[in-house]
Amino acid sequence: MSFTLAQRAHKMNPSVIREILKVTERPGIISFAGGLPSPDTFPIEAMRIASERVLTQDGRAALQYAASEGLPALREWVAQDLHKQGMAVSPDQVLITTGSQQGLDLVAKVLIDAGSKILVETPTYLGALQAFMPMEPHVVSVDSDDEGVLPDDLQTKAADARFIYLLPNFQNPTGRTMSEARRAAVAQVAQKSGLPLIEDNPYGDLWFDQAPATSLSARLPDQSLYLGSFSKILAPGLRLGYVVAPRALYPKLLQAKQAADLHTPSFNQRVVAEVLKDGFIDRHVPTIRALYKRQCEAMLEALTREMAGLDVQWNRPAGGMFLWAKLPAGMDAVQLLPHAVDKGVAFVPGAAFYAAAPVQETLRLSFVTSTTEQIRTGVAALAQTIREHLPR
Amino acid sequence: MSFTLAQRAHKMNPSVIREILKVTERPGIISFAGGLPSPDTFPIEAMRIASERVLTQDGRAALQYAASEGLPALREWVAQDLHKQGMAVSPDQVLITTGSQQGLDLVAKVLIDAGSKILVETPTYLGALQAFMPMEPHVVSVDSDDEGVLPDDLQTKAADARFIYLLPNFQNPTGRTMSEARRAAVAQVAQKSGLPLIEDNPYGDLWFDQAPATSLSARLPDQSLYLGSFSKILAPGLRLGYVVAPRALYPKLLQAKQAADLHTPSFNQRVVAEVLKDGFIDRHVPTIRALYKRQCEAMLEALTREMAGLDVQWNRPAGGMFLWAKLPAGMDAVQLLPHAVDKGVAFVPGAAFYAAAPVQETLRLSFVTSTTEQIRTGVAALAQTIREHLPR
Repeated sequence: MSFTLAQRAHKMNPSVIREILKVTERPGIISFAGGLPSPDTFPIEAMRIASERVLTQDGRAALQYAASEGLPALREWVAQDLHKQGMAVSPDQVLITTGSQQGLDLVAKVLIDAGSKILVETPTYLGALQAFMPMEPHVVSVDSDDEGVLPDDLQTKAADARFIYLLPNFQNPTGRTMSEARRAAVAQVAQKSGLPLIEDNPYGDLWFDQAPATSLSARLPDQSLYLGSFSKILAPGLRLGYVVAPRALYPKLLQAKQAADLHTPSFNQRVVAEVLKDGFIDRHVPTIRALYKRQCEAMLEALTREMAGLDVQWNRPAGGMFLWAKLPAGMDAVQLLPHAVDKGVAFVPGAAFYAAAPVQETLRLSFVTSTTEQIRTGVAALAQTIREHLPR
Repeated sequence: MSFTLAQRAHKMNPSVIREILKVTERPGIISFAGGLPSPDTFPIEAMRIASERVLTQDGRAALQYAASEGLPALREWVAQDLHKQGMAVSPDQVLITTGSQQGLDLVAKVLIDAGSKILVETPTYLGALQAFMPMEPHVVSVDSDDEGVLPDDLQTKAADARFIYLLPNFQNPTGRTMSEARRAAVAQVAQKSGLPLIEDNPYGDLWFDQAPATSLSARLPDQSLYLGSFSKILAPGLRLGYVVAPRALYPKLLQAKQAADLHTPSFNQRVVAEVLKDGFIDRHVPTIRALYKRQCEAMLEALTREMAGLDVQWNRPAGGMFLWAKLPAGMDAVQLLPHAVDKGVAFVPGAAFYAAAPVQETLRLSFVTSTTEQIRTGVAALAQTIREHLPR
């Protein structure tokens, strides 16, 4: 090839797991592998009415170039929504992004030099690793338990790190949530060591019984970047997210945003601003919570029933879309996957989500896109696969 | 601030010219400064019908996550459209991007290391410089005349360059077009020296009397990346563009795309695929051409009339949205701008578009968003401003 690749491009390779998972898209497979929200939750009719209204009333503006910062009405909505969660955010700190994945790309460009140390949870969101990687950071994994990163290990590793990337609510991949005590301890370590926080919160609204504790950004507003998304509360196909930045950092993110795609589609921003009018979210999100809670309970019941006698462990998420399971010691989820697919069920091996030293027994199960009937059938098939491949 | 910035972020600063131009957005100013297409050309009704249809018939898919490559129907449309222009492109070489600005961002990530030499025209598109800059290239400006880059200078500078970035049709900022002879000569130099071409073609469909010569990518398909856009033939607020890549390079661009924003909004892709059905573009684009040609002629007439007796020069674009003018020797367009704004007219000083050694007398005039009446008034005001500030 006549092209000379940048160094970083040599490290861009299709994920092995993604290749395996392509198989799972074939009809008949019950997939717990996806990271997709349930399309049953998409407000199609509200979108239809809003699109019609935006194009009829404001078509020229909706189809024209627009400001890189985002639509004022949407930035105001975000600031007000975060106010309700105890964050004192002004609309001029809100940057609308093309999905929150783009927020991660902008963070990487503005904060990572080649070789910069950055900290992540163990395990962490794969998409964040992919977004950070092109800027060639030195990624360090901070020890974590069911409540999130361990403050002591964070303290040890904080020196000279550019930031720590955290997903405190119903984390992808584990479904775990940082407790109030852990948040307080992590915020204290971050403050003491001057460690910036990148707080990613795509799932925070999807709680089952009670809202999660106050965000880390509310505790340390001047040293936090907060990423939010409309993908899980409206629809991901719109690609609408946002970053909230301290005023000192905002102009750099804005410049990076402008260079990346000029601005997020004005049409989508206007349609969503129209949908959000008059408290739509307050009526809509409870229906998502109720659905996902039911699905999660169905999966927990199926696991209890089907995994009986097998040394399989799993957690009990308080919200979100995923739970995290651990196979009997010595089993490798990557090796198990093709056998599970043969039996008609798929999952994501946990190894994909570790920046270093993967725990081979782990796997991620999504409970939101399958019906409760499929959940029962799929978990039974998974249990049978495990039973047939137990280590001797 | 507690954040440590990446080296590249120190170079991200708001453009001085952008700050000046904010003033030009105030009501009453006739602006030739914008890079916006005329909203009179936006197919609002077609978009309304297509949005309605997509959400009614296919709402769940339109609002869900989708493949990073883009919607198959849209990739096929692009490949077929390029076929008509003599490019043998397969749909699997087409990557849908969030505007063609994102194409430039992906090119930068995949092909530029810190310090890599890259070549650009003199002058060149500012947005490309902004997209390339975060990867810290060494930008080298290739001497150019009214027909594009000079083959001899290109030959001299080609060694070790990662690529040359070219905008051959109705260039932004100059409005100039590469002649057939120049294309042949440039392709020959590129082939001989193995220099990859990044060919950006957002304006190619907007010709006035005849289509421009065959693309460079058609001549050197294996060493070219081709960027296209729906911004100027449908609407920019959709943020829809594409990159066409040789098969060897495609997977790297795809990885970079996935990390950047997962995929371009599925809703927008489906709506546009619906609009494009049944030859819509073949009926729609001629109306844009006719409008822009009329507007361009109005500006050329006004210039001829108003600049009489002033030593001002300008070119005669064969399409697109811009023309390029040169003030009397010794005048600085940056210094003239605030005086012009005082008289109610704005433009972009050409200095913004030079990677090195700006020609201070140059300026870019857009003829597409003002009415012919405004064009007459605005050009008269500009001539008066020049007259009052002629160098002694």
